[in-house]
Amino acid sequence: MDDFKHLKIAVIGSGAVGGYYGGKLAALGCNVHFLVRGDLEEVKRSGLTLREPEGEIRIPDARAYGSTNEIGPCDLVLIAIKTTSNGALETLIPPLLKKETALVTLQNGLGNEEYLADLFGRERVMGGLCFVCLNRVAPGVIEHYGHGALAIGEFCGAPQARAHALVSAFKEAGVDARIAESLALERWRKLVWNVPFNGLAIAAGNITVDVILADDGLRSLTRHLMEEIIGAAAKFGHHLPSGLVEQQIERTLPMGAYKPSSLIDFMSGRAVEVEAIWGEPWRRAKAAGVSVDRLEMLYFLLKRLTAHSSL
Amino acid sequence: MDDFKHLKIAVIGSGAVGGYYGGKLAALGCNVHFLVRGDLEEVKRSGLTLREPEGEIRIPDARAYGSTNEIGPCDLVLIAIKTTSNGALETLIPPLLKKETALVTLQNGLGNEEYLADLFGRERVMGGLCFVCLNRVAPGVIEHYGHGALAIGEFCGAPQARAHALVSAFKEAGVDARIAESLALERWRKLVWNVPFNGLAIAAGNITVDVILADDGLRSLTRHLMEEIIGAAAKFGHHLPSGLVEQQIERTLPMGAYKPSSLIDFMSGRAVEVEAIWGEPWRRAKAAGVSVDRLEMLYFLLKRLTAHSSL
Repeated sequence: MDDFKHLKIAVIGSGAVGGYYGGKLAALGCNVHFLVRGDLEEVKRSGLTLREPEGEIRIPDARAYGSTNEIGPCDLVLIAIKTTSNGALETLIPPLLKKETALVTLQNGLGNEEYLADLFGRERVMGGLCFVCLNRVAPGVIEHYGHGALAIGEFCGAPQARAHALVSAFKEAGVDARIAESLALERWRKLVWNVPFNGLAIAAGNITVDVILADDGLRSLTRHLMEEIIGAAAKFGHHLPSGLVEQQIERTLPMGAYKPSSLIDFMSGRAVEVEAIWGEPWRRAKAAGVSVDRLEMLYFLLKRLTAHSSL
Repeated sequence: MDDFKHLKIAVIGSGAVGGYYGGKLAALGCNVHFLVRGDLEEVKRSGLTLREPEGEIRIPDARAYGSTNEIGPCDLVLIAIKTTSNGALETLIPPLLKKETALVTLQNGLGNEEYLADLFGRERVMGGLCFVCLNRVAPGVIEHYGHGALAIGEFCGAPQARAHALVSAFKEAGVDARIAESLALERWRKLVWNVPFNGLAIAAGNITVDVILADDGLRSLTRHLMEEIIGAAAKFGHHLPSGLVEQQIERTLPMGAYKPSSLIDFMSGRAVEVEAIWGEPWRRAKAAGVSVDRLEMLYFLLKRLTAHSSL
């Protein structure tokens, strides 16, 4: 771990996910540099605050920057911008690169590792799956409502030493981190939750997950959507455990009136990650000849609903 | 036709459909009595006005009543209340009945003839399918944007003399009326349009039919929904013509920024006929073992969207 503390780490996108996971490493004493956009002045002045169920963590001296040129070459880059801004990575990432720089996308949905691999080389690319309820409630202030598991893996091949080191650091920081033997499997597993809950929360009229589960029709639809995702994943060789549907429903019940992140984005007028969460899985399933009619319908509805030109 | 003018006719529900079709008969000189709710005083004072593409028809002396007791027994009753108020028919209809009174439901969706047959006897029941663009723009004022075909048939058995007489009267009044040899077939035919357009107009975020057709995903979804309805109808022996999907798309294109009636209801905070248009077809298809996954999803979403308890 001492070695890890000498690594220079950048966090690109310091909203809920970047602020939380980067903040946990910074609080541990790691050398973390945050690229901050809208909240830059506030974070420079007051640092980051993580409100956890068990208490508040303050990182008053969080290092915040307005550009990656100011940060310079790093050993490790945690990428936590919205996928709808992925186009910006083409210019944001190069100043951070040296020969061995690892790029870890903590983003939602499918296609992010591929995008980074195309731009910067596949050997650099890692991914992290965040199974967590977070919300940025004010500039530099992130609330953590529970859960928090983080599964870290390689885009290509088996987990390397760098993945194990990152998992160890997160564990020491109090994050329930683990190695993802197959990052792709974990991505599909996360979609099993995100596709129905993030999607129906918007498409059924701005409702929270408890309302979805209390509605007979939407609960049934949730199960069917989960089954479509599990079926598509299996077609790509990613066999998710039987019982996952019920397990996901069970784990959602205690969340109460939780707003999925896409609903928060939608209600705030921010871009919704429609392509990463619904579009790309649909395109892949369709190309592979898997029937995903409900996913398709949800994708088409969400694409329109987020186009902001209704009556 | 002289005989027809001696018939006493009641119109139950004098919104767009009842006001328009009842108004056409009244303008022809038929003996029409309108049950009017919210607009009673205005219609008593100013009568009805039908704004047609080819000019305005004024019926200043339209007979408006606040209760069916005031109207009394009739030969023919045109029923044009929203299906969401069908429960009221149990008390509204009896004062209008004598031995031979025919009940003609002009309502949307499936299940209305069955409901009337259960309450008042199947031999009384007829139905009319209105393929028309109407809107009640002010109390007693109905705008007619085009189309207007009316298909009239019997709930049980072949068309009787009363159906032919009603069609003749409507034709004389300038309505493009015809006999429906099979009322059930016509109901399914109408659903082929109503299910996708009325449904997606709401579920895709309050959009007009031109926006639906200009969106690649929603246009594809419209076709798939139409195919599901055609498949369900076929299972019940109602074989709709091949090419109907494209024909319905073609006939919708010139409608421009048309708001389907359910969207107008939804945006005005009025009840949407979710059960008649989506719920009942879904229940019947499901009971018959027909796969209607998209119809089901649309039904579940609309049921929730019209429940008025979002964030």
